[in-house]
Amino acid sequence: MEKNLTEHTLEEKSIWQGALLDVWRDKVLLPSGKESFREYIRHPGAVVIVAFLENGDILMEEQFRYAPKQVFWELPAGKIDPGEDILCAAQRELLEETGFCAHTWENAGFFYPAIGYSNEIIHIFKAQNLEKVASPKLDEGEFLNVLCVSPQTLLEKIQNGEILDGKTLATLARVRFF
Amino acid sequence: MEKNLTEHTLEEKSIWQGALLDVWRDKVLLPSGKESFREYIRHPGAVVIVAFLENGDILMEEQFRYAPKQVFWELPAGKIDPGEDILCAAQRELLEETGFCAHTWENAGFFYPAIGYSNEIIHIFKAQNLEKVASPKLDEGEFLNVLCVSPQTLLEKIQNGEILDGKTLATLARVRFF
Repeated sequence: MEKNLTEHTLEEKSIWQGALLDVWRDKVLLPSGKESFREYIRHPGAVVIVAFLENGDILMEEQFRYAPKQVFWELPAGKIDPGEDILCAAQRELLEETGFCAHTWENAGFFYPAIGYSNEIIHIFKAQNLEKVASPKLDEGEFLNVLCVSPQTLLEKIQNGEILDGKTLATLARVRFF
Repeated sequence: MEKNLTEHTLEEKSIWQGALLDVWRDKVLLPSGKESFREYIRHPGAVVIVAFLENGDILMEEQFRYAPKQVFWELPAGKIDPGEDILCAAQRELLEETGFCAHTWENAGFFYPAIGYSNEIIHIFKAQNLEKVASPKLDEGEFLNVLCVSPQTLLEKIQNGEILDGKTLATLARVRFF
């Protein structure tokens, strides 16, 4: 029997707004009729790009992430700027982080990386017909290495547990190029 | 040429600790030698379970998530309690959320769902030889429906963009049962 699962907002409360994190604690009405609180991050949304070079290799990045305190292999990705179109965000991020532009773009859906405590949505783009047009122009405080990885190597690294970034795994499951 | 990517903690600062979220803003030393700040969530870690019924079906849940304000199809999962062994957490969550216990368990690696702003790690478990031993005993404020889904249906739903939970997509990419 299908249960009603929806929770309704009774009161929205901003807890803290940092340079990156926007923390909220809302009062909600549960399906049971009781009241409770939900704590979560409001996020502007992001894009992730699966960019294929002419030989089939995929552009990856090697980047230190402070929260988990380690270096990850991950697909190029970044936050959407206020008012920015999602395709423009994908094109901007690929260019800024890798120095490549692509002549063929395809929106390949979206997913939510952390549904338990964030409203972040990540839009997936496939990019083909790449052209190296510049050197990467990273944001202040952003440091990364660009890598070209064959799908076979990427698949092996997923199977071996060497790809530990959830957004990269989820994107590859969704795009399912392998 | 390999660049040094690591950032070093200069000062840790707790911003807000809610019932769920533990928000921090640390001062860090960047690879460039400059100082900056990193905002992030400290998380106790979680488990996700791919539980196979005898006919090959996989146990899924249908659950409303407040932050993205929608119902998701997702694998059973939950936070690790303080001091709890990860296998015990997986066994407890599967039992609480679905009423099933499993006689065969396998740790299938881990990943980080939101490396940009959370240190959450999700440990993956495969569960087989299931037995329905109880009715679900949900946490207060937790409401969900349990579903049995064939791998074929799950794959179709991933391809159709109907599975939008990042942890479920990442787990299935990692376990790669299809």
